[in-house]
Amino acid sequence: MAAIDMGSNSFHMVIARTDTEEVRPTQKLAEKVMLAAGLGEDNVLDDDAFQRGLDCLRRFAQCLEGIEPKWIRCVGTNTLRKARNGEAFLREARQILQCPVEVVAGREEARLIYLGVSHSLASSIENRLVFDIGGGSTEFIIGREFEPLLTESLHLGCVSYRERYFPDGKITEQGFKKAVLKTRVEVSSIEKEYRDLGWSSAVGASGTVKAIKTALIENAWYTDGIELDGLYKLRDKILSFNTLADIDIPGIKAERRVVLPSGLAILIGIFEQLKVEKLRFSEGAMREGILYDMLGRHEPEDVRVRTIRSLMKRCGVDEAHAERVQKTALELFRQVQVDWDFGEYCRDWLNWSALSHEIGLMVSHSGFHKHGAYLLTYSDLPGFTNQDQAIIAALVGGHRRKFRDTAFEPILPHLQEKVRRLMLVLRLAVVFNRSRRDVVMPDYRVKTNKDGVTINFDSDWIQSQPLLLAELQQEQDAWSKVGHTLEFE
Amino acid sequence: MAAIDMGSNSFHMVIARTDTEEVRPTQKLAEKVMLAAGLGEDNVLDDDAFQRGLDCLRRFAQCLEGIEPKWIRCVGTNTLRKARNGEAFLREARQILQCPVEVVAGREEARLIYLGVSHSLASSIENRLVFDIGGGSTEFIIGREFEPLLTESLHLGCVSYRERYFPDGKITEQGFKKAVLKTRVEVSSIEKEYRDLGWSSAVGASGTVKAIKTALIENAWYTDGIELDGLYKLRDKILSFNTLADIDIPGIKAERRVVLPSGLAILIGIFEQLKVEKLRFSEGAMREGILYDMLGRHEPEDVRVRTIRSLMKRCGVDEAHAERVQKTALELFRQVQVDWDFGEYCRDWLNWSALSHEIGLMVSHSGFHKHGAYLLTYSDLPGFTNQDQAIIAALVGGHRRKFRDTAFEPILPHLQEKVRRLMLVLRLAVVFNRSRRDVVMPDYRVKTNKDGVTINFDSDWIQSQPLLLAELQQEQDAWSKVGHTLEFE
Repeated sequence: MAAIDMGSNSFHMVIARTDTEEVRPTQKLAEKVMLAAGLGEDNVLDDDAFQRGLDCLRRFAQCLEGIEPKWIRCVGTNTLRKARNGEAFLREARQILQCPVEVVAGREEARLIYLGVSHSLASSIENRLVFDIGGGSTEFIIGREFEPLLTESLHLGCVSYRERYFPDGKITEQGFKKAVLKTRVEVSSIEKEYRDLGWSSAVGASGTVKAIKTALIENAWYTDGIELDGLYKLRDKILSFNTLADIDIPGIKAERRVVLPSGLAILIGIFEQLKVEKLRFSEGAMREGILYDMLGRHEPEDVRVRTIRSLMKRCGVDEAHAERVQKTALELFRQVQVDWDFGEYCRDWLNWSALSHEIGLMVSHSGFHKHGAYLLTYSDLPGFTNQDQAIIAALVGGHRRKFRDTAFEPILPHLQEKVRRLMLVLRLAVVFNRSRRDVVMPDYRVKTNKDGVTINFDSDWIQSQPLLLAELQQEQDAWSKVGHTLEFE
Repeated sequence: MAAIDMGSNSFHMVIARTDTEEVRPTQKLAEKVMLAAGLGEDNVLDDDAFQRGLDCLRRFAQCLEGIEPKWIRCVGTNTLRKARNGEAFLREARQILQCPVEVVAGREEARLIYLGVSHSLASSIENRLVFDIGGGSTEFIIGREFEPLLTESLHLGCVSYRERYFPDGKITEQGFKKAVLKTRVEVSSIEKEYRDLGWSSAVGASGTVKAIKTALIENAWYTDGIELDGLYKLRDKILSFNTLADIDIPGIKAERRVVLPSGLAILIGIFEQLKVEKLRFSEGAMREGILYDMLGRHEPEDVRVRTIRSLMKRCGVDEAHAERVQKTALELFRQVQVDWDFGEYCRDWLNWSALSHEIGLMVSHSGFHKHGAYLLTYSDLPGFTNQDQAIIAALVGGHRRKFRDTAFEPILPHLQEKVRRLMLVLRLAVVFNRSRRDVVMPDYRVKTNKDGVTINFDSDWIQSQPLLLAELQQEQDAWSKVGHTLEFE
């Protein structure tokens, strides 16, 4: 299996062999792509950075031969979240890698990082603080064993801060101070919550922490972990250089030097604000987290199921009804699966959207399908990619009333047709359960026709259901307006 | 005091004398404006209906002389909720009436109706089902004593159904049947919830129920309440006429006759679907509810406070922090109130927005101010008008990060400047509490300058607060971009 992390600073790839429990890396690759540096004021990724990224993926792709696409996952983070042309980049990346390429939200990134880091550490029943200083964002997690308890992602990163506080490559004391202060302001927004939960050891991941550790060791400022005292000495040393290009510290590669001052300022800000005493470094990172996550998805305890259940609870969903609709939807799915060429991933989307289709009632009854779509679009949903969320949101938003074309805009073009058909399945499942009761429906058969479905009911039975008939007629009208055919006999 | 109900079918006005507990109507006026009939497919109110509405208000206005504006409230419902030119209508209405003119959401309408009806009935400790068939929507409430327990508003009304099922004034058996069936489909969406809660008596409000009761009595089909049997007989009688204009039933005014078939179809649909056995009529209605609500607002138990508290709970808000921000905001408010000519209603808006400013965290940390604004815009908030909700949403959506001009669009032009200034107050209150702790801040003085405020801090103290200073500088930048001045000394 293989995981690729398209970070704001570096792209990483790890290839591993696995049995069900363990992941053994066989190959690791990293390239300093500096994607975040190509992001202009207008949040458009410039051509150079765009090409640097794709070139790197082309090199990675050569190592992926022979690995099944379902065991490859490629994930983008902060810069691709922000870039207005991020979708174009992902499209080309998919062409190159021929595997799923997705962007994840900040908290999901944090969860994956924790998954990777926690597998790299000795087991401990105490709370751990883990953070990962990236190129565009920094993730903070408190977790215990393999379980993340608090996850946050803040907008501070060694590439974006280099641009802002060390412009034109100049190192100034004032710039450094400002970077530390800005970090403290950002971190202070989560400080209380993290302190309240507390931790007994702190672990840093990412190249920034690794490089700083190396620099401290080279200068004999490191004993049993990174401490503030050593960081201050390193700061003074760095402030003695005039430009980023001048930095000369043994053991640090040239490409890392240019983000060392900004990375150090961020680390000092975190130390000061969270009062970290000692920090250890972990080699574990998001890429390993992605591998463990892929393993978990094929096991009973899929984190996504837990996420949807917890969302349902938070929104006070009528669970019995959600499960009724889910059951009917999956039965309908079974009957049309072959004709409509639905893969297993389609079943997942249908499943999640059926379970969550009423969450919007938490906001208001009027237009609750739209509120549900909003919540699914913007909520932090551990385990889900942005594309998953967009698809479930589209399904929930279109499960009743008018079909809206705009609902499909955030969905990848090649998936839109599938999602459109899943929507028909979900709508029927909702109509079939209109009584909100467990009723025994006589067998019915569903066949696809070119643009929709034909349902065969027991004719005596359906005649005794005037309300169901009326709703099916209403559906018929709604479907025909967008070119779908619903027939029933 | 006076209340005006701008309904989809009729406009009503009631003028009353009150002591603190009781409302004694002294004058009642009603005009069949048929606003809903002027709403085209495109949801634009046509000129005729627009003018009919304003003309009616001009007549009402003549009776309002001598009543203080703060004791007058004018409320619009379904048709004005839907009309795309509803805001233009409200503007002219305000000109005519010189008092607050607002639109309320469906559930708020239901609450006001229940308030009016429950005050018209003998006290009872049992659950009551109350519904009010309006011109454009029908509200369903289950309540006990003066407390609504379930409120819903469905899109079915005697004017809109007349247009749809009795086109060109023709009465057909098929049209009548369709109207009944469509009502049953709509009602079936709330049936389970209402049945589960249950009721021991049913009460109908509104002119439709009153007219039907009259017709039943005239024909000796009424004994101790309205029953399905009598309704069927009335249906057969009505189906014996060919057009709406032909209907000739003693006791029913001509203007009511035209909406009698559609109103009757809706009533039959409700009876059949909810299995109502006997219905009593109540003279109480939304207009009386508005009067009782005005009384309640000046008392300790303001329903709006309860609403905000319950919203905070549902969203899992950190209440201690919300109250900290509230306290600071009200202190800042006190210092600038005179200069900025803030009325009491401004204090209310600030209060509610401070309490709810973090509800969006329920969705996600990233952009939580925007999620909060969404929730406040679309949630059913008993006691609040749509305009209140728009203002609190704007304040919460603008309490951090960039100022967005679009936030002010849903707000009435003459209030925008006030809301903009309240936003400055709220932002400062949030920054002052950035540590999320109860800290004793030394006295500070806030003075307004033309476009913003100047804050005088104790100079030793503020120098010891580098993070607060950094955040204030950040605010300064954000304010200056939209022409506001923040100074601190």
